[in-house]
Amino acid sequence: MKKLLVIGIGAGNPDYITLQAVKALNRVDVFFIMDKGQSKDKLIDLRRELCERHITDPHYRFVEASSPERERGDVDYRTSVDALNLAKQRTFERLINEELADDQCGGFLVWGDPALYDSTIRILQAILVSGTCAFEFEVIPGITSVQALAAQHKVALNQIGRSVEITTGRRLAAGQVSDADSLVVMLDAQDAYQHVEDRQTEIYWGAYLGTPDEILISGKLEEVAQQIERVRKAARQANGWIMDTYLLRKP
Amino acid sequence: MKKLLVIGIGAGNPDYITLQAVKALNRVDVFFIMDKGQSKDKLIDLRRELCERHITDPHYRFVEASSPERERGDVDYRTSVDALNLAKQRTFERLINEELADDQCGGFLVWGDPALYDSTIRILQAILVSGTCAFEFEVIPGITSVQALAAQHKVALNQIGRSVEITTGRRLAAGQVSDADSLVVMLDAQDAYQHVEDRQTEIYWGAYLGTPDEILISGKLEEVAQQIERVRKAARQANGWIMDTYLLRKP
Repeated sequence: MKKLLVIGIGAGNPDYITLQAVKALNRVDVFFIMDKGQSKDKLIDLRRELCERHITDPHYRFVEASSPERERGDVDYRTSVDALNLAKQRTFERLINEELADDQCGGFLVWGDPALYDSTIRILQAILVSGTCAFEFEVIPGITSVQALAAQHKVALNQIGRSVEITTGRRLAAGQVSDADSLVVMLDAQDAYQHVEDRQTEIYWGAYLGTPDEILISGKLEEVAQQIERVRKAARQANGWIMDTYLLRKP
Repeated sequence: MKKLLVIGIGAGNPDYITLQAVKALNRVDVFFIMDKGQSKDKLIDLRRELCERHITDPHYRFVEASSPERERGDVDYRTSVDALNLAKQRTFERLINEELADDQCGGFLVWGDPALYDSTIRILQAILVSGTCAFEFEVIPGITSVQALAAQHKVALNQIGRSVEITTGRRLAAGQVSDADSLVVMLDAQDAYQHVEDRQTEIYWGAYLGTPDEILISGKLEEVAQQIERVRKAARQANGWIMDTYLLRKP
């Protein structure tokens, strides 16, 4: 039986990797690499470095597949994501069928944790349901950028006995969030914190968390929101890409 | 200046520890241990084992302090938590002042991630504000039981483009949760999933996650809720304590 490992490698700091993930890296024969966009080269390099650093018997190889891109512009978001995931599923099926022998182990290296805003688990479950390939798989959790954010700001995600909502910039901008007093926002391409009405809300913002380029800004929205928007734009321009996340805490 | 490290050691599986945490363990002169309740001995043993396994120069020592207990029964929850945290703060202040020399490094080993339903960060910030001790501190994130749950069930925490709410059993039982379609429930002492009205809701439940005693049950509430309540009760009786968490997903 073919085996697949979906390995969370943490977000940013290479030392966020767990011992479980290091052991998993050492079981993999073929790593499947499917990054996209402007951060692509940097993220692929980071993965190769992790493997070189932690794998003791270097019998492994990398297979890079061009990752399909989501259609943008005048299409429904959910429809475009479904189409993207179907295209990814076809790519995964081809890789598993063509690049992996029956007794071999394939690995997907996932930034952060495979359980949070990543499609790998969902796609593998869909392939198993469709019956187009047979394999077993395991999931190895990793430190997310949400956890890196809280650690670097030295702040708890929740208030005492209260809830935390983890959501997307898209939902925040559309007002589709609950009234939880702690709101973590990921995948925000549009400065959605500018849509928050109560400017007394505290924001804990971080970019390139856990890396040498890390930027941290915190304070009340009325005091720091403009600064964050400025710094964010400049950093994205300077680096060609940005990965950031933030915690909003109601007063 | 005294230094304190708040180190997330992951939940359950000793291999959930990160390389960053291993490096942090090796910087600590004095570990402060403050578990409580029936799981106390087991949790303290696990911490000692982690230190023995990962610390290369064993110059460190452990200081155990009896952890104050929250007052139960006829008191307001929030009031009792505030009183508990103040008692903990006094204990922390005493430990930092009496057990740590000026150039030494103290360590708190936190189950899971210090940013999620743990009071250590909050208490250290309160001490700094009060000015009763001077120190610097760092936070090292760890794999939470939420992430262990998702990995072991091989399920994503979020639906595509949707939010996840992390909350407590107390809030779920009281109906104080949002309408997020993915709800993670921690610290549930009272089988609060039995209060969920829509019995078509899927539950992914796990106890002793990542340990040899791990138990996983998933399915629709109408099909598995009674089984979970039964298994949970029996496991708590057999082990003297239980640590469990679950994901609820609306149909």
